[in-house]
Amino acid sequence: MADSAAATEGANNADKVALGFGDRLTAKVAERGRLCVGIDPHPALLDAWGLPRSVQGIETFARTCVEAFGDVVAVVKPQVAFFEAYGAGGYAVLERTLADVHAAGALSVADAKRGDIGSTMAAYAQAWLADGSPLAADALTVSPYLGFGSLDPAVALARQTGRGLFVLAATSNPEGASVQRAQVESKGSVRTIAQSMVDQAAALNAEEIASGAKAGSFGVVVGATLDDAPVLDSLRGPILMPGVGAQGGSAADVARIAGDAAPLALPNVSRGILAAGPSVPALRADTQKFAAQFG
Amino acid sequence: MADSAAATEGANNADKVALGFGDRLTAKVAERGRLCVGIDPHPALLDAWGLPRSVQGIETFARTCVEAFGDVVAVVKPQVAFFEAYGAGGYAVLERTLADVHAAGALSVADAKRGDIGSTMAAYAQAWLADGSPLAADALTVSPYLGFGSLDPAVALARQTGRGLFVLAATSNPEGASVQRAQVESKGSVRTIAQSMVDQAAALNAEEIASGAKAGSFGVVVGATLDDAPVLDSLRGPILMPGVGAQGGSAADVARIAGDAAPLALPNVSRGILAAGPSVPALRADTQKFAAQFG
Repeated sequence: MADSAAATEGANNADKVALGFGDRLTAKVAERGRLCVGIDPHPALLDAWGLPRSVQGIETFARTCVEAFGDVVAVVKPQVAFFEAYGAGGYAVLERTLADVHAAGALSVADAKRGDIGSTMAAYAQAWLADGSPLAADALTVSPYLGFGSLDPAVALARQTGRGLFVLAATSNPEGASVQRAQVESKGSVRTIAQSMVDQAAALNAEEIASGAKAGSFGVVVGATLDDAPVLDSLRGPILMPGVGAQGGSAADVARIAGDAAPLALPNVSRGILAAGPSVPALRADTQKFAAQFG
Repeated sequence: MADSAAATEGANNADKVALGFGDRLTAKVAERGRLCVGIDPHPALLDAWGLPRSVQGIETFARTCVEAFGDVVAVVKPQVAFFEAYGAGGYAVLERTLADVHAAGALSVADAKRGDIGSTMAAYAQAWLADGSPLAADALTVSPYLGFGSLDPAVALARQTGRGLFVLAATSNPEGASVQRAQVESKGSVRTIAQSMVDQAAALNAEEIASGAKAGSFGVVVGATLDDAPVLDSLRGPILMPGVGAQGGSAADVARIAGDAAPLALPNVSRGILAAGPSVPALRADTQKFAAQFG
């Protein structure tokens, strides 16, 4: 409804229409570079930082992360599983963390890999992508085992609220290929499941760009260590690329895999930086070292 | 380590080894039948029940459900998305709901469709399958877009704590086929992704049965309305079958699809029963009507 009202009032009101996630991300990357750093309060990292494996421990961990790199990088990515492991108490920490990331001027990606159908998918969208939700993030990772089309309720709400999605396409774990490289036929041509996810995200981005956006809001997740990554040249949207740093992905890998989509390819480093904690200056220095590599 | 210690001490201690989920489910089904009823505090249902769309609303909704059918059916399945939509407050309600289901004598399946890799998957397993976790359920639904093998940390913890998994295989939504019916080759034979998930769960169940269990703990999710469901005869574990009732799946469909695995095929009804609320006697009567159909 908001869209058609805006269209009716015409171009004079164009500046009142909120920017989509793709354009917000483009502006933030221009200011801060492409690096995305994770907040992964993994039990072994809590131990290494001298923190308890408790709600209090992850709270201190997350606050330290935001202090160290929330005002440095474009994108901060809390790994939801490490908060969910502590139940409602962990989720209360996640709510505060997402608010702190926002206050520090970074965009947040909730790495939750949610996926379901119909009104259940709509409820996940409500949790992560609705204005006013306590867990609202700038973007959400989603999992398409139920088909790309099952994500429609999240696509619709993301468009409405200027938020984004990162759809799992090709992951770097060895077991991923057993699903993601399976063959599907569509309109007479055969492609991998991973490529079909990229192509469907590209179609959404093409629509958004046709409506006036400069970049699309529908990203994909593609591992930075893959030899056989899907073709990303036509995506016109963001790519989240885990596997950089500790797992061996380099700036050259990111450039090779992202192709023409490289301007919004976000190299994601988590433990490669978090291992420097709990010292805020050390975390900040390692963040800047990676940021310099990826520009 | 617990397994090898038990093996060393020999058969005298067999009765001290906790039962697996498959055997616990078999016993519960013998007592209460196969019906699984959902707790789905969907916004439209909250409206219909005269409840607010709030943490308080879903709390009353969930308590009413447990009162109405927690002591009637074998399995109760809270749909996690509808709790997550309210953030930490919603998760606090979910914690209490899972405890209430346990107190009422039913087994709980947390319908969360989680899926990730490595230590992140381990953190999801910790949240839902660890003894003492505030969100501990008897079983968890999981999503295998990252490959069946990516679920290993959850398989390991489920074995250790006597809990179970339901792996998404073939869902009833029309978009599901675009992924689930893609072809994969393995050892010279070609099968669908859906069938490969069933076969990998069957392999885990065969191991568990070889170790003394009567039924396996590794289930699959297969829609009750499918014409082209995977072959389930060799599963020797549970099947969660949504799509019964409102979506049209009948007792005959469940029998046809489950084949030899029918004794642990759990027909899942959610809105077909929940629409009878908020009256506890009406919810109970509808539960008993469905239970009589599925025995």
